[in-house]
Amino acid sequence: MSEMIWLNGEILPMSEARIGVEDRGFQFADGVYEVVRLYNGKPFTLSEHLDRLERSCEGIRLKTALSKGDLTREIGRYLEKSPMREGMVYLQITRGAAPRNHIFADTKPTVLFYSRPLPTVPAAGSAEGLKLISQPDERWQRCWIKSIALLANVLAKNVAVAAGCDEAVFVEKGIVTECSASNFFAVAGGKVLTHPVGPKVLPGITRLVLMDICKQLDVPFVERQISEAECLAADEVFITSTTREIGWVAKWNDRKISNGQCGPITRKLHAAYQKLVAERTR
Amino acid sequence: MSEMIWLNGEILPMSEARIGVEDRGFQFADGVYEVVRLYNGKPFTLSEHLDRLERSCEGIRLKTALSKGDLTREIGRYLEKSPMREGMVYLQITRGAAPRNHIFADTKPTVLFYSRPLPTVPAAGSAEGLKLISQPDERWQRCWIKSIALLANVLAKNVAVAAGCDEAVFVEKGIVTECSASNFFAVAGGKVLTHPVGPKVLPGITRLVLMDICKQLDVPFVERQISEAECLAADEVFITSTTREIGWVAKWNDRKISNGQCGPITRKLHAAYQKLVAERTR
Repeated sequence: MSEMIWLNGEILPMSEARIGVEDRGFQFADGVYEVVRLYNGKPFTLSEHLDRLERSCEGIRLKTALSKGDLTREIGRYLEKSPMREGMVYLQITRGAAPRNHIFADTKPTVLFYSRPLPTVPAAGSAEGLKLISQPDERWQRCWIKSIALLANVLAKNVAVAAGCDEAVFVEKGIVTECSASNFFAVAGGKVLTHPVGPKVLPGITRLVLMDICKQLDVPFVERQISEAECLAADEVFITSTTREIGWVAKWNDRKISNGQCGPITRKLHAAYQKLVAERTR
Repeated sequence: MSEMIWLNGEILPMSEARIGVEDRGFQFADGVYEVVRLYNGKPFTLSEHLDRLERSCEGIRLKTALSKGDLTREIGRYLEKSPMREGMVYLQITRGAAPRNHIFADTKPTVLFYSRPLPTVPAAGSAEGLKLISQPDERWQRCWIKSIALLANVLAKNVAVAAGCDEAVFVEKGIVTECSASNFFAVAGGKVLTHPVGPKVLPGITRLVLMDICKQLDVPFVERQISEAECLAADEVFITSTTREIGWVAKWNDRKISNGQCGPITRKLHAAYQKLVAERTR
């Protein structure tokens, strides 16, 4: 079956899905997006993703005619026709097309989503450890908005890959904010430490689920600024994202984190995360 | 005649120019652009614009097969068929399409340009004065790259318009950087003051031409940080952009600049700019 996409209310083959050159998403990065994980053919934490989408839309003053209920129903309708079990749904909304002008016009937003297969994430602690590299945080000040203005993230990610690493960690004046496509966590003294959400940190949905898990498992979850030096000396370091779940970090700028093995708290949290996923997507 | 666009080597009607959903320009703002003014059907400072485009491409590690000579020739071929006298050429290059992933793939860049009519800019000093409003500079740190990641600029511009103003002036820790779609200048003690180009200031082409004009007219051109307070007390304030040329500012945050009239230095510089344009595009 050819790949299908939902575009402005119609489901059509991906190859036929085309956008006008003057879509504001293409000329101004004037749009927002979400990536939702599919397990067993079911979207995980869809409600949380759509809530964040709504906040992102508000953040860029974008109004769509589609409610959360509409989107939930349409995504369900799309997934019903799909045989995909393990994958993700990519959803994007832009302000729509108009003759190029910074000033908002009375445009009709472009809304689209499609699914893609993804490999199953290995069981907690069984994947290879990730390698991180520090990069200056040169992004804008509204990273809490999940916008498609991702050029700074893309450039940092590719510096990391070119250096043989998996992810770039943004560091601003010695403080670790997040990674190019994931939230960042250090474990020290039995506590999980992470930067508060805000100008430089996205309210990640996996991060949100992790907060709940920490509460259930009685692992202290502390939101505060953490320095790069503190992180390099941490007992454990991990990153979270929708597609990656919880990824343990082995190396940072070529230095081992602790003994270079997946730490016990990271492993415990990831196991609990996978258990929760399994329960909710049976 | 229907509007035409040059897209990846072909000239076709604008209505037929469509981009794939997975073009990196649409999903990651992974692209750069230029706007070139047409006077008397001729592109003004095209060479300077294409030089900057090349630097922007280098800035985002984007390689195209098109040289400056190729682009000059193709733009010429396109304009030959156009009856347009007063207008602009919008040119955009993105990294091209690939299944969504931050990591660069072996994509073929998307290159396009098209022209649009613009009204003639009124003679120096004869337009209405502009109204500015201050906005926090929340943009990224590589504003010297003319990238399509313009969401911060768009949001600031629309705050200005909603407040009845023409442009948003970015202010960072009390220092004026530039505007949402133009460079910024204050005139004090007979000198033209402007922030140096760099992380927060685009090397504007009109700014570049203005530097030459100041030299010719013996008007000191000083690149240094200027505070918002200093600007509000300046003798004259103006902004520059390709489409606006030199626009004098009458009000800023509802306060008049000087006596609220176009100042003599702004008028003189704009008159010289228009004379230069007329000479070069005869």
